[in-house]
Amino acid sequence: MLALALGVACTSFLAAGSLGGSAPSVVHRPRASVLLAESATTDEQKASGISWDSHEYVNEAPESLVRDDDLPNANMEMRRKFEENCRRAQNAICNAVSELDGKPFTEDIWTRSGGGGGISRVLCNGNVFEKAGCSLSVVYGSMPQDALQSATSRGADRAKGYKEGERVPFFACGLSSVMHPRNPMAPTMHFNYRYFETDGGVWWFGGGSDITPAYLFEEDIQHFHQTYKDICDKHDPEYYPKFKKWADEYFTIKHRGETRGLGGIFFDDHNDREPDEIFAFSKECLDAIIPAYLPIVAKHKDDEFTQKQKEWQLMRRGRYVEFNLVYDRGTVFGLKTGGRIESILMSLPETARWEYNHQPEEGSPEAEIMDAFKNPREWAK
Amino acid sequence: MLALALGVACTSFLAAGSLGGSAPSVVHRPRASVLLAESATTDEQKASGISWDSHEYVNEAPESLVRDDDLPNANMEMRRKFEENCRRAQNAICNAVSELDGKPFTEDIWTRSGGGGGISRVLCNGNVFEKAGCSLSVVYGSMPQDALQSATSRGADRAKGYKEGERVPFFACGLSSVMHPRNPMAPTMHFNYRYFETDGGVWWFGGGSDITPAYLFEEDIQHFHQTYKDICDKHDPEYYPKFKKWADEYFTIKHRGETRGLGGIFFDDHNDREPDEIFAFSKECLDAIIPAYLPIVAKHKDDEFTQKQKEWQLMRRGRYVEFNLVYDRGTVFGLKTGGRIESILMSLPETARWEYNHQPEEGSPEAEIMDAFKNPREWAK
Repeated sequence: MLALALGVACTSFLAAGSLGGSAPSVVHRPRASVLLAESATTDEQKASGISWDSHEYVNEAPESLVRDDDLPNANMEMRRKFEENCRRAQNAICNAVSELDGKPFTEDIWTRSGGGGGISRVLCNGNVFEKAGCSLSVVYGSMPQDALQSATSRGADRAKGYKEGERVPFFACGLSSVMHPRNPMAPTMHFNYRYFETDGGVWWFGGGSDITPAYLFEEDIQHFHQTYKDICDKHDPEYYPKFKKWADEYFTIKHRGETRGLGGIFFDDHNDREPDEIFAFSKECLDAIIPAYLPIVAKHKDDEFTQKQKEWQLMRRGRYVEFNLVYDRGTVFGLKTGGRIESILMSLPETARWEYNHQPEEGSPEAEIMDAFKNPREWAK
Repeated sequence: MLALALGVACTSFLAAGSLGGSAPSVVHRPRASVLLAESATTDEQKASGISWDSHEYVNEAPESLVRDDDLPNANMEMRRKFEENCRRAQNAICNAVSELDGKPFTEDIWTRSGGGGGISRVLCNGNVFEKAGCSLSVVYGSMPQDALQSATSRGADRAKGYKEGERVPFFACGLSSVMHPRNPMAPTMHFNYRYFETDGGVWWFGGGSDITPAYLFEEDIQHFHQTYKDICDKHDPEYYPKFKKWADEYFTIKHRGETRGLGGIFFDDHNDREPDEIFAFSKECLDAIIPAYLPIVAKHKDDEFTQKQKEWQLMRRGRYVEFNLVYDRGTVFGLKTGGRIESILMSLPETARWEYNHQPEEGSPEAEIMDAFKNPREWAK
């Protein structure tokens, strides 16, 4: 998946402290309109057209970040509809998370003269969440065919209409999010839903929602998976088994022989039916984030825990870091080809821990969940 | 550089608490002699001949881990001499570190039926050091030519005598170490000195020592660099400028446009003079670890510091994690081709932190050292 540049920032601005339930759920952070490059710019980043130094912060998002193109192959209606839906979902999700946390998200908005931009929201140092980010990106760029290959599962097919060695111009729009709660009994959750088109007229959808607990409460994981299975089944009975397996495989930390978490669904290169059908599926998946995840956090946010349990959570966050830096397609692609580094690495937890050769005690809750990381289970009915 | 499997373990064993200065500096941990695979084993790991499942723990290191080979091209004298020197240096360094810390290292020893093995030592949760590891590895394996390329800087030349696509059998011996002190004023240090031979008779030396402070004390960094420059200058006046620049380039976190630390020396594929001459250089570099580094830790181990300063240290440790997982040749190669994962990732700090878009305040000590990470300086005279 493409690293969607998230462009958020939160240090001193949020130091104002926690706000009551009636406070705004998003606070815009005014920025000087000219942006100096904040991260290193390589030649590949420049060539991609998506390097961060070509962007600037703005104080208000334009009605749409999608460019008025008259490319013969572009599905303009879908581009606009997908962005609109991402913005709607971003508002709904941030409002619900902020209400649970009691703190607002901070917002940064940017545009790029060549088209596209982003609306990034992050809640740092919250009451319930250590770090929660939810960011929209609209990207116009070009990538080498081999980068396209590493960004998708069926990259080779994606370069249709372009000569070998030629860069492939593309449009991408997506909403992505990672939420790391403080309490070790409350799971981390990640989602990303995206729509791609190459200028050559090849299009596909990708996405997924997955959950990463440090301690196993079976009913929570069943609830999360069941929510997504129900949506999948409405669209195609083959979806859930296929996308659940795909998540288990994709979110594997190969060098550990274990999964990052307890999965969910994951799909990529999805284009074997009408775009509107896949759009509807993708929309329902986004709408399910709040009911699938937030009740679990609400249930566990005030659970008691020991220092040892906190350390185990931080060790699992270490595994999250290992996965994201070594295997996550979006992160690896993003680090190579541009975008705002702080945004690409927004998915990393605030703190992580590596304890030398830590082996959970036999029969302990840590050993129990480790078994589920090593042997993916079925959770939904 | 090749990921040298380090094979160390430290959790409950060290819980016995701190020991006085007269305690042994190394404590051997008896192990059952049959080892089950502790990490995932991929097909590539099996093909490499160095996958962890072919090793077993032993209670005493054989006099030499180098195999009695009668390969026509093998420089048996150098293989033995290099290992012997690594073992001598490992003893000296662990003794000195343990004396400063007041806690012993824990030792694990393993061998492999096909030849080779390791002596790994780690000091966890020490008085002065959060984590310090120093490990010898002797490795017999084979690798695809492209892996050889990613393991060295001039990989293509290293496959001499082998057909395209053919795996290249090799011998490698090295001593490697990372030491993370607790006090944020005391720098992290890493070194690795290694000797390689392919069965085809191509040989080279590699290595380096580098220092990674969170706060800048110029005289400390000058001392570290000067120690290595003096050794370099004795062997070749071109060494220090070349190897210092190589370290600055190698230890760059490209996506951040900054170095991991303040460098030192780094060299690889070194074989443009008599092996004995390079061996002598490599030996002196190893002997310099104690005088170049430990006085700096001794000086700062009890410095006062604030919570904010500790957090800055942990954020720099986050950068250490980013470098090691994304760019370090040894780590990336190791994760792909085998060895013991806990050992390969021994270089990671115990704790690391990612604060969203943290920008050091202008004129602050954090901004001062960040400038040195962004613009490598000359430290030695």
